[in-house]
Amino acid sequence: MHLTKKGGKKPTVEELLAEAKKPSQLAPHMHKFYEGKVQVMPKCAIRGHEDFAIWYTPGVAAPCREIQANPEKVFELTNRWNYVAVVSDGTRVLGLGDIGPEAALPVMEGKALLFKYLGGVDAFPICLKTKDPEEIVRACELIEPSFGGINLEDIEKPKCFYVLEEARKKLQIPVWHDDQQGTATVVLAGLINAFKIVGKNPKESLIALIGAGAANIRTAYVLIRWGVKPGNIMLVDTKGIIHAGREDISKEEDPWKYELAQITNAEGRTGDISKAFKGVDAVVAASKPGPGTIKKEWIATMADDAIVFACANPIPEIWPWEAKEAGARIVATGRSDFPNQINNSLGFPAIFRGVLDVRAKTVTDDMCIAAAEELAKYAEERGIHEDDILPRMEEWEVFPREAVACALKSIEQGVARIKPSRQELYERAVAIIKNARESLQVLMKAALIKQPPPEEELLKQS
Amino acid sequence: MHLTKKGGKKPTVEELLAEAKKPSQLAPHMHKFYEGKVQVMPKCAIRGHEDFAIWYTPGVAAPCREIQANPEKVFELTNRWNYVAVVSDGTRVLGLGDIGPEAALPVMEGKALLFKYLGGVDAFPICLKTKDPEEIVRACELIEPSFGGINLEDIEKPKCFYVLEEARKKLQIPVWHDDQQGTATVVLAGLINAFKIVGKNPKESLIALIGAGAANIRTAYVLIRWGVKPGNIMLVDTKGIIHAGREDISKEEDPWKYELAQITNAEGRTGDISKAFKGVDAVVAASKPGPGTIKKEWIATMADDAIVFACANPIPEIWPWEAKEAGARIVATGRSDFPNQINNSLGFPAIFRGVLDVRAKTVTDDMCIAAAEELAKYAEERGIHEDDILPRMEEWEVFPREAVACALKSIEQGVARIKPSRQELYERAVAIIKNARESLQVLMKAALIKQPPPEEELLKQS
Repeated sequence: MHLTKKGGKKPTVEELLAEAKKPSQLAPHMHKFYEGKVQVMPKCAIRGHEDFAIWYTPGVAAPCREIQANPEKVFELTNRWNYVAVVSDGTRVLGLGDIGPEAALPVMEGKALLFKYLGGVDAFPICLKTKDPEEIVRACELIEPSFGGINLEDIEKPKCFYVLEEARKKLQIPVWHDDQQGTATVVLAGLINAFKIVGKNPKESLIALIGAGAANIRTAYVLIRWGVKPGNIMLVDTKGIIHAGREDISKEEDPWKYELAQITNAEGRTGDISKAFKGVDAVVAASKPGPGTIKKEWIATMADDAIVFACANPIPEIWPWEAKEAGARIVATGRSDFPNQINNSLGFPAIFRGVLDVRAKTVTDDMCIAAAEELAKYAEERGIHEDDILPRMEEWEVFPREAVACALKSIEQGVARIKPSRQELYERAVAIIKNARESLQVLMKAALIKQPPPEEELLKQS
Repeated sequence: MHLTKKGGKKPTVEELLAEAKKPSQLAPHMHKFYEGKVQVMPKCAIRGHEDFAIWYTPGVAAPCREIQANPEKVFELTNRWNYVAVVSDGTRVLGLGDIGPEAALPVMEGKALLFKYLGGVDAFPICLKTKDPEEIVRACELIEPSFGGINLEDIEKPKCFYVLEEARKKLQIPVWHDDQQGTATVVLAGLINAFKIVGKNPKESLIALIGAGAANIRTAYVLIRWGVKPGNIMLVDTKGIIHAGREDISKEEDPWKYELAQITNAEGRTGDISKAFKGVDAVVAASKPGPGTIKKEWIATMADDAIVFACANPIPEIWPWEAKEAGARIVATGRSDFPNQINNSLGFPAIFRGVLDVRAKTVTDDMCIAAAEELAKYAEERGIHEDDILPRMEEWEVFPREAVACALKSIEQGVARIKPSRQELYERAVAIIKNARESLQVLMKAALIKQPPPEEELLKQS
């Protein structure tokens, strides 16, 4: 059921909340039914038991020796080239806060599922029994030899910035914090197309970022890197608009937020959240779930053709129709049942596909920007309008294109270990992603992955 | 080709070496062709993109909350119950020595492949960039929340004993060092049936263990635990027979070897390796690859109906026909192309199947003994003789039985978190193992896992 304003009568808040709750009601039963979401599967043929003499002793000694002589060969003779660790300490899981590493595992498994299905990436959930930032970095270093990349996930801030920076210094494989770079990538893609539709130049526009968590802090940096004037960006946290005079923001405690306080908000605007909307062209909220976090009357003070991204889950900071009634021309949310979903799944699977396929040593903000631009371009080519600014998850053809854009940028920036051609990259990405999707299909068709019981039956167990 | 003495003319050493080399010649090409041996695969249905609202945000928050409220639920709502980390620092890989964590990855991936195919266990290779024993233990602790068990692999001794003991103290999931317990399990199973055939009581017999590495040190402990009199066991290392007077064996450096030096070899025999054979009923060699490590004339000094396990790979310490010519009645080796293979793959996949299915907190030597006894019993029931003392890898029905034996012992010893019935355990183990094998079959049939090129083509690339 798509409860969009366009579909007919406006749904009530109760209906929307009920609809948002349904996956949550089904999820425990579905998780219990399947007892987990990913498994480890052979990817080589086993024609008979004699093949184990090749895959294990005595034959396996030969590839071991080749890698010992030339360590780069580990990316050819094992699946390391395609392994990504989804690493979390469970300190900031979804909107649930610090629920610990065990309780974080369903999210990390879900991430691994998306990695495989959308990007053909073999991601494995690694939940860590420590909250110490040094030890999280050290854990990433320790497990590095098995992996082609690290996806940090749901680590609280400001620790997450430190962990990302340190891990990048110490590891020779790409380290990425999806809550930062992933969100920033998809937000940028959305903004690019939204500004196209309203006919403004984003690099000259005023943009307010509501919420100064991992997502918006990185979004600010990525927007600046992309070309938005730092002074045109305004960040807002729970204490109000961030400006250079905010004495509660210290360099020691949060150097990233501090730096942004110095370089953003050129006009030196002050005041509470309500003051941040006046005259701005776009608002990107990644803050407290709504409704009511953002008020209609604030939207009304924005510039003409206002763009509003209200990304909180499960309920956006303001209902899309309220934002529109207040004058917004383009509204995006985090929900799949409203138009314009800002969905991280558009980012990380394909970006890692690209990163892994050139064995990149890191993933730069420029690579994220290249991915965002390709996302925007794909949507533009197949047609965009106010209620359709971004590709949707089911448009799988976008992922190989995004992967290639990211991979080529990596080569251009000199962080790629190998340099396939655009054509080679594209064909490989398509083949890998198709293999992942088709493998699931044949396993389901053969009932080796069972169909779930009917929803009614599952819900009866509640 | 089975190059057994019974098959016709006795093969030459050159022919046997050539045959042993073939998997090694094929292995690099086969590894390159498949670019790795295991992958991560969904194990839940994805009927459409709307299912991601159940498997990921927003639905996934509900199982997270359930686990936060009751941490044991992580074993029901995620695949943690079936994840095993194959952990190595790469310091003693096969016979290759300290080749480092990257070069060890093909072995750990191969292990994961065997875990899945034979035991239905989702094992993931974790190669560690450290050689420090404290840090290896700490790494196991850090990743514990994701796993149901830890399989230590190819860690040099005596560090491996320390790591195993410490990790067991600190973790609430089973930790196992396959080079120790796995080998000991299969050796014990082989000895049980060998002694049955020759009609001697193993608990009253003299047993010499040639080589005092991880395998034989643990084998000694397991044999003692099983009931062999400590004084009836004799260990031999590169300096000769181990006895209480050996001043080069210090408690500080290797407390395990030291302890065995005190309690084994009741007669206080001394001298070089040649002296260890005189009058003993069984020899278990896990030492230097042959041929010629063990000499015919030494075998000739053993008791009547001598049992000789020459386990070195790829060439046993003595050729089986030489041992037989010298008077051995039963000979086993590590090779799949000779009769009586002492094959670790008979142990770890099924033992972990059993351990995981009761969510055991540890894996005791008694559980290994239960597994060994079931292995022996399975073979005895379908018929054993001098050249067929153990189940073979392709007799997959043995694995669920072995798993159940191990699981029931775990329940009996109070280290199991849950207590299914024998019938429930058996049916579950069969279903899981069958699913693993059939999944591979359908993926191969659908060409999603390709057939390899013909051998001749691969070998031409050499």
